[in-house]
Amino acid sequence: MFPKNAWYVACTSDEISDKPLGRKVCNESIVFYRGADGRVAALEDFCPHRGAPLSLGRVVDGKLVCGYHGLEMGCDGKTVAMPGQRVRGFPPIRSFPLIERYGFVWIWPGDAEQADAAKLPHLAWAESSEWAYGGGLYHIQCDYRLMIDNLMDLTHETYVHASSIGQKEIDETPVATRVEGDEVITSRMMENISAPPFWRMALRGNGLADDVPVDRWQICRFTPPSHVLIEVGVAHAGKGGYSADAAHKASSIVVDFITPETDTSIWYFWGMARNFRPEDKALTESIREGQGQIFSEDLQMLEQQQRNLLAHPARALLKLNIDAGGVQSRRVIERLIAQEQATTPVASAAA
Amino acid sequence: MFPKNAWYVACTSDEISDKPLGRKVCNESIVFYRGADGRVAALEDFCPHRGAPLSLGRVVDGKLVCGYHGLEMGCDGKTVAMPGQRVRGFPPIRSFPLIERYGFVWIWPGDAEQADAAKLPHLAWAESSEWAYGGGLYHIQCDYRLMIDNLMDLTHETYVHASSIGQKEIDETPVATRVEGDEVITSRMMENISAPPFWRMALRGNGLADDVPVDRWQICRFTPPSHVLIEVGVAHAGKGGYSADAAHKASSIVVDFITPETDTSIWYFWGMARNFRPEDKALTESIREGQGQIFSEDLQMLEQQQRNLLAHPARALLKLNIDAGGVQSRRVIERLIAQEQATTPVASAAA
Amino acid sequence: MFPKNAWYVACTSDEISDKPLGRKVCNESIVFYRGADGRVAALEDFCPHRGAPLSLGRVVDGKLVCGYHGLEMGCDGKTVAMPGQRVRGFPPIRSFPLIERYGFVWIWPGDAEQADAAKLPHLAWAESSEWAYGGGLYHIQCDYRLMIDNLMDLTHETYVHASSIGQKEIDETPVATRVEGDEVITSRMMENISAPPFWRMALRGNGLADDVPVDRWQICRFTPPSHVLIEVGVAHAGKGGYSADAAHKASSIVVDFITPETDTSIWYFWGMARNFRPEDKALTESIREGQGQIFSEDLQMLEQQQRNLLAHPARALLKLNIDAGGVQSRRVIERLIAQEQATTPVASAAA
Repeated sequence: MFPKNAWYVACTSDEISDKPLGRKVCNESIVFYRGADGRVAALEDFCPHRGAPLSLGRVVDGKLVCGYHGLEMGCDGKTVAMPGQRVRGFPPIRSFPLIERYGFVWIWPGDAEQADAAKLPHLAWAESSEWAYGGGLYHIQCDYRLMIDNLMDLTHETYVHASSIGQKEIDETPVATRVEGDEVITSRMMENISAPPFWRMALRGNGLADDVPVDRWQICRFTPPSHVLIEVGVAHAGKGGYSADAAHKASSIVVDFITPETDTSIWYFWGMARNFRPEDKALTESIREGQGQIFSEDLQMLEQQQRNLLAHPARALLKLNIDAGGVQSRRVIERLIAQEQATTPVASAAA
Repeated sequence: MFPKNAWYVACTSDEISDKPLGRKVCNESIVFYRGADGRVAALEDFCPHRGAPLSLGRVVDGKLVCGYHGLEMGCDGKTVAMPGQRVRGFPPIRSFPLIERYGFVWIWPGDAEQADAAKLPHLAWAESSEWAYGGGLYHIQCDYRLMIDNLMDLTHETYVHASSIGQKEIDETPVATRVEGDEVITSRMMENISAPPFWRMALRGNGLADDVPVDRWQICRFTPPSHVLIEVGVAHAGKGGYSADAAHKASSIVVDFITPETDTSIWYFWGMARNFRPEDKALTESIREGQGQIFSEDLQMLEQQQRNLLAHPARALLKLNIDAGGVQSRRVIERLIAQEQATTPVASAAA
Repeated sequence: MFPKNAWYVACTSDEISDKPLGRKVCNESIVFYRGADGRVAALEDFCPHRGAPLSLGRVVDGKLVCGYHGLEMGCDGKTVAMPGQRVRGFPPIRSFPLIERYGFVWIWPGDAEQADAAKLPHLAWAESSEWAYGGGLYHIQCDYRLMIDNLMDLTHETYVHASSIGQKEIDETPVATRVEGDEVITSRMMENISAPPFWRMALRGNGLADDVPVDRWQICRFTPPSHVLIEVGVAHAGKGGYSADAAHKASSIVVDFITPETDTSIWYFWGMARNFRPEDKALTESIREGQGQIFSEDLQMLEQQQRNLLAHPARALLKLNIDAGGVQSRRVIERLIAQEQATTPVASAAA
């Protein structure tokens, strides 16, 4: 169960080259490609002629040509032409609202009538030359909400990521969780602790001493349908922590766009945006590799947790203080799904 | 759904060596082996003793010996002996009517009472020393009718086989389709075109100039239950095309025996018979390799088309002029299945 | 279907090192580890917090620590602690009765109230310095009863293990089968035959001539729920066979502990105990390798037999004299399951 009237990241801009890209999003098999105007189009991955996947075809002059018998498809889902055949009467296939922004391709898998560009999140860091971004994509066999739980409760860092970003002070420091409209924010402030390896690396990368006590913060922000942006950082202790002057801290934003593929699998777009030394591409790559390694440690846990839950569907999980972020995020999601089901036109639901 | 009272190719003669061969045909698990008289037998692949697959056993003096406890099975499905045990009262297992001819082993998976050798197709090229044949076997995860569609509409050559036998004139030339009893014939005649790479190779192989305009033909012939033989060739333009003298053309028969393994998988026996330079084994092998490469290009398309269709079972596909061959072939199949269901004895149907 | 109120081998002692071991037994996912006192504990492999598998965690000072968020679990299934959280009210997870003995870890997957150490089989050879043991573990996709059938009818040796322990005299010699309470014993005595390769090796290993006629015996003993111990051996012919003096024979006990993983898969602990040259570790290893090779020959047969039976659920198998051991063993099992279902408290059954 996921909201369908929402913007999800379908892919990164650079995943769409001269070949069409086939990807399932929210249980819909979709083909992505660039039309003649360079804009990305998203269509059902199903040729109306004989059902071949259009993603096995090619893009010729901005038209998607089916790789089986050459049917040419327009970006609006209407058949344009087919050699030697009359195709004007072909029923159109479904096209999906789509926005390419911030280096990502965002898709609206629900009711196209309700697609609203204003609902796209605004990512200031993605538009500023003072920030650099690096990230990657993992395909994970778990319900997207398990990943939201994971990111809205960072105590797991101490256990899953013990050698990089985990430290016992995370467990020992309580979180504060609040809901603001559809957003959920859960934050943890740790004072006068030693920095774990990843952050010592970041301090050095930022030209700061890495062997002195620091204040550390984690501010996780869930926004629907399934985005989690986390402000993280350390400052030399006593300089103001989260509010310290840039000269005393290393900070960044952990970026998590979680897109359901099916009910029990996700496309997980992870990355990190930082506003120090943005021009240093080697540093970007080094952070990306480190983060990729750390985030890969969650995969086995999430997939086996999912299997355990599927095997015990009736079993209630416990909700502790540390789970408040995930619990509140799930409430927002449930509310949105209920709203969606109440307002979806019957015809569209039937389709 | 497939006719069961029909001859299907189960394997090639050379697949049955001194070991038994296990293969599923039309949803029946079957073991094939040569009995004492050298004739191929086909039995249920299920030992009546403990259910072990007989295909894991061995052939000793023409008897099939179960590899688990040594039960000896006769070619008629009756248990012959078992060391130290009384086995006369064992109920027989099912045996299947079988004919070995033309280098293939043909099986009748339906009602044995109705098996009729006269219904085996006659393959003149397989009996003549003026013809040579080379071929292979692919195992494909698709409904057998998708492969019939594929072969009865060769416009896909332009897209799937663009670098070998495809050319735009195929799309541009309409086909003529007719039904003759249970046969469906769809043909396309192209005049004064340039030969694609495969046919230039064939012209050279036949000692003819490959850089002059040609007439090209494709005559696809479906015969039930699922055989498609295709006369294909090129002649130097203006020499009579399909009817040109042998000195001016290179032609052959594409041989396709499509045997359902299950409802969504097939054993696809493909090959090519030619009546030029039949003694040239190197040429046979060269053509076989080329054809194997070309035909392998269809596999991914067919398997993903099948998956798409399974995911959208309610969706009607479109039928264009080019699809007439497949559409008519499916009608013949449906008629035969309906006849079969109307005439099958109740007892046999229950079994 | 298997008895649950019984002792099954879950693992060997040396499989439980400093990391927890996750293994499914009788359809229960279980985590095994050593507590502070060095004793092995067995708990549901399901963290009560968020359902993560506890087997992905670690053991710290004898406590099982969940690898996701650090919940600490006691050997009794009660949550001990969790950093920064109140966990006293957590409902306990299930713990399983367990005995570590004879180098194996035995688990009682059924009603803990009924667990009775006195029901553990007594293995004299495992306690004596005059015996040596070597063995291994195979994971096989078949119903555990197919493996019992296999071991209670050794005529399959002639066909499956033709090159090592099989010989035609096994088929030719009838077995005697008897039931003693819950035990089933089936035995075969062969006189004045030549020893097959494995036994020639054993004779040589025992310092005896390997090229003279021997008497050979096989005494298979089934004890519930699914243990089969087989006394096997050869003596120089005419020296008394099974009862011959140790100086004239090579004998051993084939050890088979068959533990259902699911309804159609097993953990198969196989091994051999011998009472000659017990100090010779190289011989132990050589026998272990030979036996492992021989027993691996059954895997494909059992797995394909299982698939055949699943495909033909309505089909009755035949029961010959040689099957008496398996047939009687299945009757014992059925009786025990019926008893268990009749006496299991309702509450426990519901759980």
